[in-house]
This record gives sequence, structure tokens and C-alpha cells, in this order.
Amino acid sequence: MLDLKTIRELVEPNTTRIVMLVMDGLGGLPMTAGGLTELETAKTPNMDALAAQSLTGLITHVAPGLTPGSGPGHLALFGYNPLTYQIGRGVLEALGIGFPMGPNDVASRCNFCSLDANGLLTDRRAGRIPTEVGTKLVQKLRAIKLPGVEVFVEPGEGYRFVVVLRGEGLSDEVTESDPQRLGVPPLTMGAAADAKDPAAAKRTAGLLNQFVAEARKVLANDHPANGNLMRGFAKLPDMPMFPDVFGLKAAAIAVYPMYKGLAKLVGMQVLDGAHSGEEEMALLEKAYKDYDFFFVHIKWTDSAGEDGDFARKVGVIEDVDKLLPRILALNPDVLVVTGDHSTPALLKSHSWHPVPMMLYSKHCRYDANAEFSERGCARGALGVMPATNIMPLALANAMRLAKYGA
Amino acid sequence: MLDLKTIRELVEPNTTRIVMLVMDGLGGLPMTAGGLTELETAKTPNMDALAAQSLTGLITHVAPGLTPGSGPGHLALFGYNPLTYQIGRGVLEALGIGFPMGPNDVASRCNFCSLDANGLLTDRRAGRIPTEVGTKLVQKLRAIKLPGVEVFVEPGEGYRFVVVLRGEGLSDEVTESDPQRLGVPPLTMGAAADAKDPAAAKRTAGLLNQFVAEARKVLANDHPANGNLMRGFAKLPDMPMFPDVFGLKAAAIAVYPMYKGLAKLVGMQVLDGAHSGEEEMALLEKAYKDYDFFFVHIKWTDSAGEDGDFARKVGVIEDVDKLLPRILALNPDVLVVTGDHSTPALLKSHSWHPVPMMLYSKHCRYDANAEFSERGCARGALGVMPATNIMPLALANAMRLAKYGA
Repeated sequence: MLDLKTIRELVEPNTTRIVMLVMDGLGGLPMTAGGLTELETAKTPNMDALAAQSLTGLITHVAPGLTPGSGPGHLALFGYNPLTYQIGRGVLEALGIGFPMGPNDVASRCNFCSLDANGLLTDRRAGRIPTEVGTKLVQKLRAIKLPGVEVFVEPGEGYRFVVVLRGEGLSDEVTESDPQRLGVPPLTMGAAADAKDPAAAKRTAGLLNQFVAEARKVLANDHPANGNLMRGFAKLPDMPMFPDVFGLKAAAIAVYPMYKGLAKLVGMQVLDGAHSGEEEMALLEKAYKDYDFFFVHIKWTDSAGEDGDFARKVGVIEDVDKLLPRILALNPDVLVVTGDHSTPALLKSHSWHPVPMMLYSKHCRYDANAEFSERGCARGALGVMPATNIMPLALANAMRLAKYGA
Repeated sequence: MLDLKTIRELVEPNTTRIVMLVMDGLGGLPMTAGGLTELETAKTPNMDALAAQSLTGLITHVAPGLTPGSGPGHLALFGYNPLTYQIGRGVLEALGIGFPMGPNDVASRCNFCSLDANGLLTDRRAGRIPTEVGTKLVQKLRAIKLPGVEVFVEPGEGYRFVVVLRGEGLSDEVTESDPQRLGVPPLTMGAAADAKDPAAAKRTAGLLNQFVAEARKVLANDHPANGNLMRGFAKLPDMPMFPDVFGLKAAAIAVYPMYKGLAKLVGMQVLDGAHSGEEEMALLEKAYKDYDFFFVHIKWTDSAGEDGDFARKVGVIEDVDKLLPRILALNPDVLVVTGDHSTPALLKSHSWHPVPMMLYSKHCRYDANAEFSERGCARGALGVMPATNIMPLALANAMRLAKYGA
């Protein structure tokens, strides 16, 4: 298997530019047997014209049959095997709310919960309190101090929030406090049985238990949100940076914090300020001369899929098709159009179905498929391939990879 | 991933024969967008007729996007993963000039260079002296003796030559003397920082430094070729032999030393004496009863591609097509036709594009593609597959592999 070290050794400088346009949750399914998918239904003359000159195929991000989360889906597009490089839940949650994780941070997904007079769990989600209430309670929790570490408490949606401990020698190998059932007290956290650094894990668990104890005091009169549960402890993964591995000065253009965070995680520079596809195009046009690689993320395909709104997803795809000429006008040496996973409106969730992908370049040796769709790309010359192949292929087509061996 | 050990355990004897016809740099590109590749342009009625009865596909030799050198390209065709088995530059250079490398040899790529009165480098290629001059200077260098080892000095093209040290306990983990810039003296060689056997590396580096010092004396009056640079130190890779792994008595038919050398490297027997495709066919016919496997190498597709001569490459392919009936007349049980990498005339160099491949046998379950071309093979039933799959498929079709597991 090709590893990032081998790629790094082959990377050559060039002045060529690569644009990767990612429609989140792009892949879909027909609503009725024999029908068309969202992408097949959408009128996409610009994408189809590009497909006619592109190498096409379907991509799997983790492995056939596996449904990628947003983290693994994007890591694979960025060239990282998501089975090798794993992003913990706490980190993903922190990225999702735009918290700038540092190398000494341990992040945790937290819930407000309801406890009875005996400290037994009666509701794991604190009656699903609204975001405004959760945000106010988070402000109260910010009073909590712990010895030797900084504590960050950040609000999320509804009953969810994020706690980050920052300090030297912390570990994320800590057991969770959520017992996943009612009528019992939250669990005391401890070092994970297989912790590589048991002392650090024990110390971190102690700090977290102290946080929970303090939180009960602070929240004593806030029933139904009079307690909290902590899980998904995670530090930043130890991974090589995208600009170093691929020799590309890389920029990310996204609207939502999660995707900016994922790009930042691999060392891309985030270009802020866009709130729509049009504004994302404006950022791309403005910065085009300043970077070698652009990751452009379109969120609304996935949102529509998650909502089960087939027609809206079709509409989003058609809107993106209308933006495509603005990218083509920049004349990128390599243009990749694809998604990070499927989100069929039929399933209202991410799915395992491979995702259409096209790679355009002057030298791509395009195939006979001239339709950017699930069925069209299934006939493409790339077949069904791992998404991690995209970056080496993009570099090759950008004339940025030296010959392997003599 | 299937490894060679597993294959070896499954190999069964049989009397069937396999021929692998390799057109070097076979894959191509259209010269203008929307045009045909070299292979698509060539009239190849015999190859197309064979494709109609063959299993077809496209192959990648190292990994998608990676451009194979000749070494990795052939290793992959021979069934060896080129990311696992690496051939050093010095060895490849020695193979290229037909030097018979042994297990105790360390080979090095050398340049004649120009040094000024202070020993500073003024030209890394000694004014690109012609081959006749280089050959004469090599003869002078053969006078150099080093303690405890044999020294071989062999001429190459122009300012290039090869030095091989032969002796027990030598190492190729030595730093290079070429500083890759002018105005500085050549570097003193030493043990590589990560050498596994630092003592052997240090001793070898000492011998090489002594060679350089002696060479300066010998070449003192030969400006512009009054010094030399040494790099690419390499021993033979430690790899299992092709006849042992695959249970095949194997012969190689090639015109150029590099390809004979690569075949010899994996333990094939080289059949010498051919200077053209016709003569290669004659060798094949003559030896056909004496071996189980034949690697037949056609060089001129690659040469034409490297020269950017589209029409000549088309012509070479058409010439090979006319030879194909001679192979078919031998009635091989398995016939594989493919290449070791692409060399599109458009790019005038090796490239990353996957290479057409067909495998004929009575039992191959051939696909619907009846055109031996990039586009035709892209529609083949094999899809895009690693070249290392060819040998197991060839063995299976030759009824030479036992069932795996009960």
C-alpha cells in the first residue's frame, strides 16, 4: 500500500493548481425502485460537459460497505487512510463548534443530564433543554477551575456541550462517565485498561471526575439539567501535514466550522467569510493566485439529504452546477469534483454507497463516460476506487510527482 | 494483500506454458484533446482478435498516480510488489550496461566531472565528454586497486560509468560524493546516518574515498574529466527467485541489457542473440519446448514515446501485431500482452497512466471487449488492477495453482 512517506519523497515543485470541489453527501439513491438518484435527476449541463473530458469513477472513503462519518470521509479525500488516521469524537465535536484545538488539549463530548435526589440518572439528555438554556448553563460551568490545567467549556446544540482540558501530560485514554442507561449513577472515570500512559490517564480521569463533582454543585438548582455526562475523550491525532506531504500550499473554503476544522487539522489555511456558494466562489477567485490547492466544501447537499428532502438536494446540486463555470474560468490544471460520502434523501442519513467522482486535467486520458452521475461514473475508467487514490492522481496530473524508481 | 509466500505454497506442477509479451511504454495519450492514443491509432487486427477472446483491463504497476521506472514496472509484471522490493540506482545502472552483479557487489553510478586547481567542482558532467573519451578514461581507471576487494570499472554513455566493488561485508548504506552544486569540492563519503551495519558502511565508504583519491591521480591530466562523482550505491535486493516462487522454468528474451538484467535479477534465464522483434520470435520458437514461462520484451515502443514520435510508436505497435501470429502458432496455454508503464509521445517520458493488458487462455472467461486499446481495456472485466495480479491469474489459467484452503 502506498504510504504518505513515499508520496512525499516523490513530490516535485511546480506552479500548477489543483481545485477539489466537495459536495457533502453527494451520492444518493432513487426514492423508488428503478428511479433516478438526486444527481441523476438534477440538470447539470456543466458537470456533464466536464465529465466528458474527465476521468470518472466511484470512490469509497473507508472501505466497501462502510459508511463514512464526516471526519473519515474528508481525511480520505485529503489522501489520508481513515483506518490509519483516526479523529476522536471529542476532537470532531470541538472542530464542529469551531474550537481551536491545540496539541496539549483533551476534548470531550458532554451532555447535560437529569439526576434524582440519590444521584441516579433519570434522563441522559436533561429533557432536551433548548440551546439558549444550555448556553446559559455552560456560562455557569466556566467558573470551574481545576489544578494545573486550563478548562474550556463551550456550548453546542441543545443539551450538548464540549469540555476541553489544556495542559502538559494529559491523556485521552480515559473511560467514559455515561453508563448508557437510567437508574444508576454516572460512572466514575478512570484510566482505560489498555492506556499506553496509565499515570497520565489516571491524572486526567481525576481532573474530569473533579469537573463532574464541581458541576453538580454549580448546577444543583438547574434541574432537569442538574448533572453532566462526559465521553469521547480525544486529543488531536498525530498526522503529517497536508502541505508537507503533498508539497502544496493549501487553502480551504467552507461555510461550516466542522469542515474548516478538518482542513485546519491537516494544516490547510482556512479562508473565512463565505456564507453561500457564491461567496465561496468569490473567495476562491480572490485567493486563486496565492495557493496551489483549494478544498472547496459545499454543505447543503448533505443537509437536504439528512432532511430527506430529495427535491431540495436536487436543487442544491443544480445550484452548484451553475457555479462550476466560475471555477473553470480560473483554468485549474486539475479539477476534482466529488463528495465525502453519500447521503441519500431516502435514508435521511450518511450511507455506504460509493460516490461519483471526476478528475479533469489536460492529460487525464478521459474515459467514454460523459455523465456526472452514479450510473455514469460506474462506467468510468477508474472503476470503484479508494478515495485516497485521488491525491496521488491529482498530483500526477498536475505534473507534481517524480518517477518511482529508475 | 496476497504475498509471494502464499503463492509459492499453492503452486502445482504442470506442463502448461505461459508467454508474457511486454511492449515497453505501451500506454499512451492522444496528441490532441479528443484524439486517439498510439495504440488506438495503430492497426492491430491480431491483437484485437486476441482481445476478443481475452480477459482485458488496465494495470497500475506501483500505485494509482505513480509513474513507474523500468525497474518497478517490470518487477510488478513479474509479480513482485515494487513498493516492497526496491532496486537501487547503482544496480539498475549496472544491469543497463550488462554487468553481471553478484551477491557481494556494491554498484555505484559515477560521472566524470571537472575540478579546478583547488579541487572545486566546475562541471558535474565533465563538459559532456563523448562515449569514446569516457571509455578510454575508464580503461585508465581500471588500474586502481583497493585492499581486500575486487574493483570493476565499466563505461556507460558519455560522461557516465559504473564502479562495482566486490567483496565480503560491503555495505551500500553510504552517503554520496556528488554535492549537486558547483564551486565546492566533492563530498567525502561516509556511513549513512541510518546504516544498519555502520562498521561495514564505514569500511565501504573508506574504500570508495580511496578510489576517488586514486582516480584524481590517474586523471590529473585529463581535464575536463579530471575527477569523478559517485552516487546511487546499491547491492542486489534480497528477493525470492521467480522460478522458486512461481514454479516456472523461466526464460527472458530481450534486446537491451537493462531488461535482460532485470530478468536475471529475479532468476530468469536470459536467451541472448536477438537484435530485432523477428529475432526475438525466432529465439522464442527455438526455446519454446525448454521453458514454462517466457518474458518477451519489445523496447522500441518506449524509445519512440521518449522521442515524442507518435507515428513511430504506432508503427512499432503495428510491427508487433504482425509478430503476434508467430506466438499464437506456438499455442501457449496462457498469453499475456501488456506493457511496463505508459510512455505517451505527447509527454516524451514515462507516465502514470494505467496500461492496457490482456490475458488469453482457454479458461479465461473473456469479457465483451474486443479491442486492445486504452479505451477498450478500460471496459474490460478486470477494471483497473495492480500489475502484480497478473502472475497469479496467469498461473491459475495455466492450471498451476492449487485451491486455497479446504
